[in-house]
Amino acid sequence: MSSAACIFCKIIKGEIPCFKLAETPKVLAFLDIQPLSRGHAMVIPKTHGAKLHDIPDDELAELLPVAKKLALAVGAKDYNILQNNGRLAHQEVDHVHVHMIPKPNKEAGLIIGWPAKAAEMDQLKALHEELKTKL
Amino acid sequence: MSSAACIFCKIIKGEIPCFKLAETPKVLAFLDIQPLSRGHAMVIPKTHGAKLHDIPDDELAELLPVAKKLALAVGAKDYNILQNNGRLAHQEVDHVHVHMIPKPNKEAGLIIGWPAKAAEMDQLKALHEELKTKL
Repeated sequence: MSSAACIFCKIIKGEIPCFKLAETPKVLAFLDIQPLSRGHAMVIPKTHGAKLHDIPDDELAELLPVAKKLALAVGAKDYNILQNNGRLAHQEVDHVHVHMIPKPNKEAGLIIGWPAKAAEMDQLKALHEELKTKL
Repeated sequence: MSSAACIFCKIIKGEIPCFKLAETPKVLAFLDIQPLSRGHAMVIPKTHGAKLHDIPDDELAELLPVAKKLALAVGAKDYNILQNNGRLAHQEVDHVHVHMIPKPNKEAGLIIGWPAKAAEMDQLKALHEELKTKL
């Protein structure tokens, strides 16, 4: 359930302090101490797992309702919810964490690059057929 | 519950087609037709609401478990889960949508800028005290 070397597991166990904002039997929320903007916080499942698909659904189910509470408490008007999986995808701590990052202006908060491509309908149709068999 | 002008509400009602991947009584998942990478998909709540904090918890609870299924079906190793709130935060359609964006390499998928600041403990402590009263 937990990993001895994981900094977030240590926070859950109380071995490392945090600025705790909310806690349930399944998840914990606290301030990010290297914030991208004022009010930047995160919610984590108590089960140790590096990626979203490693976490049981009952814990995943609580993450966004708690992130919503954080956004409301901070009073964020614009904000991003972000959860990164893997080094390539900008994940730094290998324990799932959902960021709630207020976006008060262009400079602060998350900076997003969006290299969208034109829709290629034939490719999308083929992908759709393939994925339907796996879902 | 729905908005006549909303493109995602029209997709939910079947008035506009989509590459549907999964559906429950509360949420719908489909391929993004302007993908950032192969397998880019999204999950939306059926209740119309522009921002995360507008959506009932029982619908929010289903979004990440379905996003997990999408990641597993696509076979994404690295990927980002992203949900944007507000124009400043890169939201384009005003109906909550959770992106599951595979990150196969540096060029494709989500591009993240991360303007983290050094921790300012006094400010974090003051913010923590303030937020605790609201949670």
